[in-house]
This record gives sequence, C-alpha cells and structure tokens, in this order.
Amino acid sequence: MQTTALLAVLAGITCLTLISLAHGRGQNAAPQRGDATIPGYSLGRPDLMRSPVSLEDLAQLEEVLLFGEEDRAALRRSRALLEPRVDEILDVWYGFVGSKPQLLASFSHPETGAPDAAYLDAVRLRFGQWILDTADARHDQAWLDHSHELGRRHHTSAKNRTDGAEAAAIVPLRYLLALNYPISATLRPFLEGEGISAEETERMHRAWIKSVLLQTILWSEPYTQQGTF
Amino acid sequence: MQTTALLAVLAGITCLTLISLAHGRGQNAAPQRGDATIPGYSLGRPDLMRSPVSLEDLAQLEEVLLFGEEDRAALRRSRALLEPRVDEILDVWYGFVGSKPQLLASFSHPETGAPDAAYLDAVRLRFGQWILDTADARHDQAWLDHSHELGRRHHTSAKNRTDGAEAAAIVPLRYLLALNYPISATLRPFLEGEGISAEETERMHRAWIKSVLLQTILWSEPYTQQGTF
Repeated sequence: MQTTALLAVLAGITCLTLISLAHGRGQNAAPQRGDATIPGYSLGRPDLMRSPVSLEDLAQLEEVLLFGEEDRAALRRSRALLEPRVDEILDVWYGFVGSKPQLLASFSHPETGAPDAAYLDAVRLRFGQWILDTADARHDQAWLDHSHELGRRHHTSAKNRTDGAEAAAIVPLRYLLALNYPISATLRPFLEGEGISAEETERMHRAWIKSVLLQTILWSEPYTQQGTF
Repeated sequence: MQTTALLAVLAGITCLTLISLAHGRGQNAAPQRGDATIPGYSLGRPDLMRSPVSLEDLAQLEEVLLFGEEDRAALRRSRALLEPRVDEILDVWYGFVGSKPQLLASFSHPETGAPDAAYLDAVRLRFGQWILDTADARHDQAWLDHSHELGRRHHTSAKNRTDGAEAAAIVPLRYLLALNYPISATLRPFLEGEGISAEETERMHRAWIKSVLLQTILWSEPYTQQGTF
C-alpha cells in the first residue's frame, strides 16, 4: 500500500519538532462554519473579494469532475469520522510537508531558510477547519469567495499577509496541485473504521479526492494569465 | 462504482457520431516512441522549445507526488494490458468529452459551435500514442520538452496550430485539470484482467493517477504568470 509506504517515510522524518511546534489546536474546540474565533479564518466574511468563478461555472466544473449529490452526501457522512481526528490528520500532513524541503520552503524565511513556527501554527488552525468545511460541502457563493481567498493566500496576491509572516512569497502552483495526491492518499485510513464497509470508505474517499481536486483548481485561478482559467 | 455510473452516463450520450468520426486509428499500427508517422506528434523532435522545468525540478515534483520506481515499473507493466485496447479507451474518453458541451467546446468552432471532425481525428491519433508514452514512463529531457509542447497546445500559445484547426483558442485550465478525475477513473477497468490480482490493478492504477496528475501539472506551466509555476 502506498499509504503504508508514506507512513514509513513519515516515521523517519527529522522534522518532528515542526509537529510539536504547530500542534496548537485542541480537539474539543472544533469551530463551526464562519467561526470568527480562528484568527484569519475567512469563510462567511462579508468583506471578501468576489470569486471570479460563478456558481454556474462551478456547476459545470463539478460536472466534469463527476462530482454530484452522492459525493456531497458522502463528504457529509465523513465528518463524523474525521472531526474527532483532525489533529491526527494534521500531524500526518504537517509531517509530510516537514519532510520535503521543497514544501517546507513555503513556510520558511526566503533568506535564512528558517521555518516560521508561528506561521505554521496559525495556518494549522485554519487547516483543521478546512477539513470540516470540505466535509460540509456547502458549495455556495460564500464558499466560492472563501476558496478564491484561499487561492490568493497561496499566491503572491495575499501570501503571508493574514498572519504577518515573512515566509516565501508564494506556494508554487506545481506543488499546490501535486499535493492532491499525498493529501488524498493519506486521508484514506481515517475514512476506515468499525462498522464502515470497504465500499462506504471507497465512496467517501472518492468524494474527498474530487473535492480536493476541485478546490486546488479553484485556488489556481490567481496564478493564471487573464482569460486562461 | 463511480466507473459504472460514468459508463451508464456515456451509454446515454447523444454524440456517438463523434466517436465514429474520430475513430481513425488502427489497433495494429501502434507507433513507437518518436514515431514520425503520426502527424504533428512531437516526442523526440529536435526543434522543440526547451521545457522551463528542469530534470531536477521534475525530480522534486515527483517526490511530492510520491511517484517513484515502483510507479515507473507499474506503468510499464500496464502497457501490455492497454496497448491492445487503445481504441476502446479512446472511445470512452472521446465519449465523455462529447457528452459535455463545456469540454466539446475546445474542439469546436468558437462562433458556429460546430465540432471539428478532422481536428478530433488528428488529436485522437496522438492521444492514443500518449497512452503508450505514459506507460513507457521515460521521464527524460525529450519527454519534458514534449510535455511542455503539449501544454502549449492546450494554451493559446499553440492551440490549433499543429492541425490548422479553427477551434476555440484555448482549453481552459480548470477543465484541463478537472479531467484528471474522469480520465483516471475510467481507465481502471482496463487495468483489470484475467490473472491480474486486485492488488496489481491497484498498483498500476495508482501509478496512472500520479502520472496523469504530473503531466497535467507540467501542461499548466504556459497558463501561469511568470514566476508562479
């Protein structure tokens, strides 16, 4: 299994300090949609830039991704499994990022190369909420605008701004897109459990694969030349 | 199964003429790498623009995708299964494109909306060879340059030029990336077969998922603003 291989890689990483540095989120404080208690969290904020992607564009894109009602329902069912384990999932993902210098660079000072622990911490809080928002699958205008804001925060348009960080000026598009694979693959074991059939795990995993791909596509818009998205 | 659902959708499509229009490639004429008999085929051509992605960049990207020697070997084993069925696979993929107006638009005249049968035909020949090239998994400089050329041919940089077509000026990046899901999902049944264990199918499928994602990432470079890829 790829997941096993990945976990083996993660077991050997030397950046474990990162995990503890960025391990700031309590499991009992899962915030709700639009929860203003997470610093910099933007879903539902009225001052967000309007997404250049319309709800009609989104529907056409979901059609190509074969993302439908079955996936929306599967994502929603996944929340019960994932919510109690958000911190474990983030440990795996942060462990992966910490083990790859080309990824960790996005969280590091461009000159000294030092990872920014406060920045990692702040992002981690929102990343946990992103898991829950993805599971909620409310793909409405507020979510589109929030997705556009997330794209801008990976791109030079708004990187570092939310947290006042002094890290690299951009997450290169190639890595933003490439993360689809490890993020989706490592999530799979968290969709297994007692009383969950292999088919149900498969349904939820498929929905997650599509949703993560959909979201990274939306996030890529700020990187594109005018008229090419 | 998603694949079953998709095949059901495909069974109902009304664009079957497209399939017959574009069904030009004989199964017995599988060309080899760099085969100059396919009009406009570019792998190995010495006059190609050099890819802005270096072999070192590629290695770092493959690392993030968890693409390694096991995947390379699995892709190569998949060739024996896929090569005799290239036309069937293309029928499924062309059927999918033909069933989605937002995808078919890339092969259609921007004003009249009429699909360009000669263009579909010409692309189909090269698309079949792309299956074999992906299975060969020779990720060297020639393949990088060829991948860059494929990106340019989806983007305004070189869309339509190879075949003298008068279709839409671009394949929008959102659809180029979204196709990852249906392309990979519909390939899976072709990786099954007598004497092929479920685990072996899974290994080959995983390698294909990673390779298709890798390639669409490389193809996205011409769409990006300078310095953001």
